Order: sequence, then structure tokens, then C-alpha cells
Amino acid sequence: VSRSSISSCRVAPDRGRARVRSGSRYDPAVDAALLCIGTELTRGEIANTNATWLAERLTDANVTVRAIDVVADEAPHIVAALHRLSRDHDLLVSTGGLGPTTDDITTSCVAAALGVPLERHGPSLEALHARLVRAGRALTASNEKQADFPAGATVLANPNGTAPGFSIRIGRASLFVLPGVPREMKPMFDAHALPFVRAARRRGVAQVRLKTFGLPESTVNDHLAGIEVEHDVVIGYRARYPEIEVKVLAHRPTQAAAEQAARRAADRARDRLGDVVYGEGTVTLPEAVGDLLVQRGLTLGTAESCTGGLVGALLTEGAGASAFFRGSVVAYADEVKRSVLGVEEAALTQHGAVSAVVARQMAEGARRALGVDIAASLTGIAGPGGGTPDKPVGFVHYAVATETGTRDARLEIPGDRGMVRRRAAFAVLALVREILIAPPAPGGEPRP
Amino acid sequence: VSRSSISSCRVAPDRGRARVRSGSRYDPAVDAALLCIGTELTRGEIANTNATWLAERLTDANVTVRAIDVVADEAPHIVAALHRLSRDHDLLVSTGGLGPTTDDITTSCVAAALGVPLERHGPSLEALHARLVRAGRALTASNEKQADFPAGATVLANPNGTAPGFSIRIGRASLFVLPGVPREMKPMFDAHALPFVRAARRRGVAQVRLKTFGLPESTVNDHLAGIEVEHDVVIGYRARYPEIEVKVLAHRPTQAAAEQAARRAADRARDRLGDVVYGEGTVTLPEAVGDLLVQRGLTLGTAESCTGGLVGALLTEGAGASAFFRGSVVAYADEVKRSVLGVEEAALTQHGAVSAVVARQMAEGARRALGVDIAASLTGIAGPGGGTPDKPVGFVHYAVATETGTRDARLEIPGDRGMVRRRAAFAVLALVREILIAPPAPGGEPRP
Repeated sequence: VSRSSISSCRVAPDRGRARVRSGSRYDPAVDAALLCIGTELTRGEIANTNATWLAERLTDANVTVRAIDVVADEAPHIVAALHRLSRDHDLLVSTGGLGPTTDDITTSCVAAALGVPLERHGPSLEALHARLVRAGRALTASNEKQADFPAGATVLANPNGTAPGFSIRIGRASLFVLPGVPREMKPMFDAHALPFVRAARRRGVAQVRLKTFGLPESTVNDHLAGIEVEHDVVIGYRARYPEIEVKVLAHRPTQAAAEQAARRAADRARDRLGDVVYGEGTVTLPEAVGDLLVQRGLTLGTAESCTGGLVGALLTEGAGASAFFRGSVVAYADEVKRSVLGVEEAALTQHGAVSAVVARQMAEGARRALGVDIAASLTGIAGPGGGTPDKPVGFVHYAVATETGTRDARLEIPGDRGMVRRRAAFAVLALVREILIAPPAPGGEPRP
Repeated sequence: VSRSSISSCRVAPDRGRARVRSGSRYDPAVDAALLCIGTELTRGEIANTNATWLAERLTDANVTVRAIDVVADEAPHIVAALHRLSRDHDLLVSTGGLGPTTDDITTSCVAAALGVPLERHGPSLEALHARLVRAGRALTASNEKQADFPAGATVLANPNGTAPGFSIRIGRASLFVLPGVPREMKPMFDAHALPFVRAARRRGVAQVRLKTFGLPESTVNDHLAGIEVEHDVVIGYRARYPEIEVKVLAHRPTQAAAEQAARRAADRARDRLGDVVYGEGTVTLPEAVGDLLVQRGLTLGTAESCTGGLVGALLTEGAGASAFFRGSVVAYADEVKRSVLGVEEAALTQHGAVSAVVARQMAEGARRALGVDIAASLTGIAGPGGGTPDKPVGFVHYAVATETGTRDARLEIPGDRGMVRRRAAFAVLALVREILIAPPAPGGEPRP
């Protein structure tokens, strides 16, 4: 619980666990473990993103993941882990070790753990052969073993690679054996393991994810006090710096009732949180801002200093940004602020580059230079050096210029250089969003 | 072994493992396991970056990590894992569960596993009290338990947080119990566990890391054929897309001999790889380019299209970029290419925005607009849409303009939008580096 390194949105540490406990009254039907196989993992050569993805996916499906074991490509350890985990859990998902080489030994270890022989699967061999022919390669003996499975296994097709998976009963567990390549593993898990989980589940379960930016997790939690009890739902949080995702999970006797309950509780949460919620599901803040701009037919540009181009990079991470994003002026040096953005020399000398005046002039200059409807700017001290008593590290001024005027704001962001830059980028996007969704000023023109 | 999802630098899959085997002839003195404790991990709420960091750190120190176990905050599972792992390993490192709340139970689980009582440690209680007073907070009963340790433990100070760690002998293992917050855990591991590992080691061990960009891992490996045998070293690879790190590891009876052997083999590897090696240790390509620019007193700017600002963001990730980086023009829209960078209308209509001509004009325009010595540009099709038979997704033109002229190049990058953008950004930085380190043209002026 003390794992979060995000000092700016420190979580009151017992809340997450309280929710885990309250969730347990629903008696989840399935208790799971993950077994991740690969020396590249035990040597720290790659991050175990599969474990995090599977753990979240199973948790969202109301499965309690009790253990995640990572073992090297060594048969005795793999077999021992299979025995132990299949004894203690209903569902066991393994990843890795299905490749064609001699150190890919998961399949033979499962056969050994079960005491059954390997059998060659004709349709898989044919599919493998066809796949290699299409790629202009020959079928080797190494490849052929990818069509071998423990006797009694159900073969699981892999549309994205050469290694099929399989499922089989072992001990108390239903075991799903999947490849380690994430883009092969994920669709196979969704196609084969998730339906099993859903079938094993005794009740309906539904979840709504609210995406928020702007409040620390503890404050979001305070705002939502009482909703869990009132609506009989479980509320969970996931911090993806600097965003906070709120997960509203409902269990009911039927799926329809669960969906209705989750929706109703999520709506209540949205009422409480207001504009802090920028979307639902998997949308990101840059995407939400892009969607609003496209809806209104407006274009956006940015003027960046301390972020060095990060806001533009975030806005263009998803495809389709050309529908609203025109470009940026990254004015890291003051000369560029003057020459390209037209920031006044006097503003820089009298107020300093990190000031509301300069942020405003940057936004207004970018609006002109890029020919956009809305320009967002920021200038700040990302650190670790460059701070002063007046303007410490993390101090950021930002502004948004539109046809009807310019708004500015400032923040003091705790954390390291990467955290300051990332939160600053999100903050200026949140200000763009705020302006886009603001109601018309009384008696005035509608906002752009 | 089949875990890598990087199709553009596919590894011949048995090489990594061959090296693991050849390394084993050195009979490492220490066999280790990691135990990561926290329901936030088994629920997939955060990635287990601690495990990857510790596994790599231990591997680099010639320790074989055989198992990584992740368990929820549940006493029976924690105690069972402690028993099992301490029976099978020489070194056991646990992370997490040392916080002040009721679900932080690692310390009491260790005491239970050992069958010893908890004892309050006076100096830790005083230090905790002083720390909380400085933060303007009171010492609560919850905090006080952070000064309790199993009888017989050695307390390990935590300079960056309230939770001290401890070490203690359990079963066959030396157990190091560390907090879960990475910025607290890492320095404690280096200060306390690493010296133990070094003392337990029977031989000298030294490693040189070469950072490379531009060749796929399999080609790098081919270039280095024979060095392992000739120099009696172990060569390992780590891919951090789009870079490849080459780790040259030497074991010798003494530390000095190991360092000399690693250095000599690394120099041989550098001879073979040439300019593909841009640095050693932890330097990144953007940092290496920055260092060269600072050495030569030159300034850099960028003109970006498909990367949306990513090159600037990468160049300014580290502190000190203001010594060489002036700014960028992100010209996502063609109008901005024309208006701010001065790209000719005719170039856009005749050759298209993704063309060598436009890339060159963008670089030259950025050099003028930003007033820099060197300007780097790129324009491409990041996908997933927008590809044509002539210019498919992943097609990128880039250019670098200097006082003495402009060079351009192009790439066709496989992979998804994120991979195309990231590799394109690195490719243009590699071209800047190539120009900076190129020998003077025969009879001509030196390169800038």
C-alpha cells in the first residue's frame, strides 16, 4: 500500500484495502494465480507487463488474483510452481515458454507435471506450416514441437503468432497456457480465458471507469464518500500519473441489474466530481480535448517551454490528431519566445520567462503564428536546477488564448522533472477543456 | 524468450539463453528470490517496477534470481512464501508492506515465520518521531509499529521515508526486508543488500554497458561473434526500444582483473560496431547528442511533423538541455510548414508533405526561424491510417540542416504508431550525431 511514489496525490493508505474487503462479501467464484515463465523476466531484462495486464483484467472480472509467480526457464522450477499453484487456485494462467527453441519448455513441463505424454496436433502442424510458408520460411524440427500438446489438452489458436496455447485441468485449477508476446497473449486471454471466468462466475458483474484529472486521489475519495454503501457497489482507484481512474464495480444476481447499478452509481459519482471527470472507459485527457475540438470544429496549437514539445507529443499520440491539431512552437530559449512568438523583451526582463505575462504572450503569439482558434502555452521550472525562493522547481505558469480572450493559471507541482513536465502538460490541456465546456458568459458571447 | 514484441529487431531466440548457460560455469555464489508484497500488485493497479529493477541489479552483480513471487497483503500467503523461498535460496529480498496501516503486515509475518516476538527499536522510534515533527505531524500508534522489528533483526535506515527496513537470517536465506516505494527501496538495496552480495561473491566481476542505436539486436550479435570466447566474457543484450544495450560481463579471480577484462572486450566490441555505439553506461541517445553539441558550442532546433513534438520532448527530458536546445517548430499542418518554416507550396503539391524535398525545406526553415546552428526535421506517416502503396505507414523522411549544407535520409519503420514515432525520433537524432562526429570532408571545411 505504501508503493505509490506520487507524492502529489498521496493516498490515505487504508482505503484501497477497505474496498478489497468490502468486495469480498460477494464471494468471488474464482481464485486465480499467474505463472510467468522466462529467464528474461528473472534477469530483469524486460518488465513483466503481462502480469500487470492479466492481474487487472482478472480483477476487473471479479477474480481474486492471490499470487503471481515468475520463474526462470528451468524445468524443475516450472514443474514445482505448476504443482503448487494448481493445488491452491481455481484458475491458473501461464505466459511464456511456447517458442520454438530448446529453452521454451512450458508445454513439456505441463505434461511432466500431469504425468501425461505429448501428442502432436495435426491441425496445428498444418496451420504452422501454412504460416511459415506465407512468411517464406521452412518448417523446422524446432517449429514442429509447437504443434505438440499434453494429452487431453484443448488447443487454443493464436491468430498473431506461431505458438498456439492450450488449456487443461491440473489439480484444482483450470490452466490456460499462453505465449509470452503481449500482442499474441492478450487476444488469446480475452478469447479463451475470459469466457471461462464469466461462465464460472455466479453473479452478474459490471464496471464503469471514470477518468479524472485535477484532484488528488484522497480528495476524489472524500467526494465519493457514501456512494459504496448507498448503491451497494465497490469503488476502486488506479493512478496513472497524473490521472486518477475511478472504477465503479457492481455485483448483482443478473448482468442487466449489475450494469444498471454500476451506471447509476457512476452517474452519482460524476455529479459529485463535476468537471474533474473528463471521460469514461479508456479515453485519455488529450483525446477528450481532441474530441471536443473536433465537435466544435476548432483548431489547437501550443507554445511550450519547459515541456519541450511534450504537449504536442501527447496530443498526437493517437491517430486523427490532424483533425484539430495544427502544430506547436517550442520556445525553449527566450530568443525563440521573442522571435517566433512575439513575446516582448520588456515582459521577459520585468517579469521573467516564468510569469503569467509571458505565458499569456506566448499563447497569444502561438495563436497568431500557427493560425489556430485556440493556443495553449506553458512556461515553468522543471528542475532539478533553476529554482529560486520566489519560483521554486515545479512552478509553472500556463495560459490559453482564444478569440474572446486569454486565461492564465499557475501551479506548483511536487516531484521530479518528469512528473513536473507531465502534470504541467495535463494541466494546460485541462484548462483548454474547461474553456471549451464552460457555459456562455452571462449576456455575452458563447465561449469558442 | 518469445516475449519481445519488437518485430523490427527480432532476436534469434536461442542466443540469450546460450549466454545464460555459459555464464553458469562461473558458479555464482548467490542464488536469490524476490518477494513483492502488495494487493495493488496482484490487482494490477501498478506495474511491478521494483521486481524488474531488483532482478536486473542482482543479475548484474552475478546473482542468479530464480524466482519472483508476488503476493497479496494476506498473512497466510506471505508467511507461506517466506517459508518456501527461504528454504530454497541464499538471498531473499522482499518489498512492500512496511507502511503504517493495518494492512502493512510484512514485519509481523516475518516474525511469525521465524517464531520470534516483535521488539520495539528505540532509535528508530526516535528517528520516526523527529521525522514526523519536521513534517508537522504527530506520532500515532499506527506509526509506532514502524519501529517494531522481529527479535534478532538488523535495522536498515530509510533516509527517504518513515519505514526502516531490516535484515535477518531465515532458513537458508539472508532476508532483506525493504519498503515498496521505489525511491525509498532502491537506495536501501544499494546501501545494504549489494554489499552483502559482494561480500558473498567468490570472484571479481565487472561489466561495461555499450549503448547502441541503428542495428537490430541480431545484427549486433553477429558483429560480436567470437568475442565471448576470445575474451572469456559474457555478452548480454537488453532492448529498450528503439535502443539496444550490449552488456559485457567479465568474471576473474580479482576485481581489478575483471575490470580490465571487461574493458578490453568492450573496446573490441566498440571496434566492431563503430558509430552504432553512441555511449556507455546509462547515457541516452538524446543526451549523447546534447553532450556533443555542448562540447562544440553548437545549438540545435527541430522541425517536426508526425512526431508532434516528441523529438523536443526527448531532448529536454534531462536537465541542462538549455545549453544546446533552442526550440522546435511542430508543423503538423501543412499551413504551418509553409507559414512558419517557409516550405514552398510547390514542394508540398509536387512531392507531398512526406518527401525528401519537404524534409529538407523544413530543416532549413527551422534553422532560420529558430536561429540555430543545426536543425533536424522529420515528416512521415505514423499510422495507423494515411498510408499509400508508395508511402506506406512507417515511411519517414528526415533531414539535418547545418551551415555547410543539408543531409536527408528516409526509413520505413515497422510497428505501431508509437513505435514509428519513437524510432523516427531516434533516427533523426542519430543523423545529427553522425554529422557531428563525421571526419572533415577531404580538402573541405570541417563539419560543423
